[in-house]
Amino acid sequence: MSKEFAFIEALRALATHPAARGLEDDCAVLPFGTETLILTHDMMVEGVHWLPGQDMADVAWKLVATNLSDLAAKGAEPVGVLLGFTLGEQDARFVEGLGQALDTFRVPLLGGDTVSGYGPRSLGLTALGRATCSPVPGRDGTSEGDKLWLTGPVGAAMLGFEAMRDMTGSDSIAFRRPTPRLAEGRTLAPLATAMMDVSDGLLIDAARMARASGVTFTIDSSVVPFPADLPAARHDEAMRWGDDYELLFTLPAGMAPPVAAHCIGSAIAATASPVIVDGAVPHGNLGYMHN
Amino acid sequence: MSKEFAFIEALRALATHPAARGLEDDCAVLPFGTETLILTHDMMVEGVHWLPGQDMADVAWKLVATNLSDLAAKGAEPVGVLLGFTLGEQDARFVEGLGQALDTFRVPLLGGDTVSGYGPRSLGLTALGRATCSPVPGRDGTSEGDKLWLTGPVGAAMLGFEAMRDMTGSDSIAFRRPTPRLAEGRTLAPLATAMMDVSDGLLIDAARMARASGVTFTIDSSVVPFPADLPAARHDEAMRWGDDYELLFTLPAGMAPPVAAHCIGSAIAATASPVIVDGAVPHGNLGYMHN
Repeated sequence: MSKEFAFIEALRALATHPAARGLEDDCAVLPFGTETLILTHDMMVEGVHWLPGQDMADVAWKLVATNLSDLAAKGAEPVGVLLGFTLGEQDARFVEGLGQALDTFRVPLLGGDTVSGYGPRSLGLTALGRATCSPVPGRDGTSEGDKLWLTGPVGAAMLGFEAMRDMTGSDSIAFRRPTPRLAEGRTLAPLATAMMDVSDGLLIDAARMARASGVTFTIDSSVVPFPADLPAARHDEAMRWGDDYELLFTLPAGMAPPVAAHCIGSAIAATASPVIVDGAVPHGNLGYMHN
Repeated sequence: MSKEFAFIEALRALATHPAARGLEDDCAVLPFGTETLILTHDMMVEGVHWLPGQDMADVAWKLVATNLSDLAAKGAEPVGVLLGFTLGEQDARFVEGLGQALDTFRVPLLGGDTVSGYGPRSLGLTALGRATCSPVPGRDGTSEGDKLWLTGPVGAAMLGFEAMRDMTGSDSIAFRRPTPRLAEGRTLAPLATAMMDVSDGLLIDAARMARASGVTFTIDSSVVPFPADLPAARHDEAMRWGDDYELLFTLPAGMAPPVAAHCIGSAIAATASPVIVDGAVPHGNLGYMHN
């Protein structure tokens, strides 16, 4: 059992409030007065979530985008963010990228904390949203027979990361400046039987949704969308790489989604494996494993 | 201009939403549906906010308590916290202390994020509260003639820190396990013309309230409460040491507070110095200076 897994299991024993959703979901969902709050907090660590020397404007953008992506998975309208910041190199660039992200996604900075640090830097962002429908979709609502959908390609962030790391000059924007699918999430939330964002990898995130829902997903890799310039030999790898922040969701069979999306599979009765790809159980790591 | 000051000035230019209160207050105050949300996010860094090797159960407690103290300064009722955690030593002890704090202050853990780290650890907590009165007190409402009050002694955390650091065996609980003044804050919020918690030191925090309100505070150190075992020669130092988390507030002259508190001074028309102690401008650092 990994250290993170043990820690989260221990936290789970504390997080008994229904709003915490057993720490199994992208966000907390908390009724508050006449409205419902959607809450998420994600961290980024230098050398883990970004490369030392990377443009801090991109890091700021990604910190905002990844948190808003969690809100998108709930169909929430963002209402504000709080920033936890460790001072270091390129702080002015960070503020610049933060401002760009907040402007682009029209979300206000409400507060936070700034600390001095030494060693690798750690950043945190809390995003708050307002639920736009009830119930708020979770990961656990898929029924047998539902179809599995994905809003866009997986693998673009992987190619972008490699372009940046290897300084090939190819486009790296998909890795550096992902776009949370906020509009799509709001449109889909009242319809989807389950929904989440693909942050750790298509296969591992699909497996999580399958487990939470008590089903197995059969995925047909020939209809999974990939970037045009990704060689077919790397399709399997792309399904196990994260950071694309597309929405993965299920709809009852026969329902067409009102946003651009690709039907990539179906839910069947649970088997020993939560996902089956092209008729076979996938081997190896299904995605980014938190250690 | 320090690095932190420059960064916060740049953030302030982004934080134009009225809920952010210009990043000048303990919390953000956000109308949400029929209620008002009170939001704060504080971080703690190993080697900066706690001693390496310190019991992580105490660190967890303090992380919760310091954030709830910000809510107390607004008179807010806590509704939940989100944790940003970096894995490291004594994680099980951390969960134990977290559980004790959440139980004691009756606030649920709603979510958060856990990351792998290396080097000094960084922890963040977001606390959410519900406003219990309107308007929610700020730091900027003191008028000339108001009296300045403090709910309890300053210097206890300093003595506790020294006992722990020097392993004297004396009581260190005031440093390790502070108590946010939640009940006092709720009782005072509808009455106080301004309120904040004393986290960085009595003099520096009083100076902040004075500047925000456009007044000067005259403080009489002979009526400031100190721990009984603190030598008089260290009273000045205790007024510049933080971490006590008592509430500092102002009331119109003639009004007695409905909670235990000490009247330590008065608001006069603004002078060149925001605080005057025993008739003189205090020299040197007024408290914990963020660098």
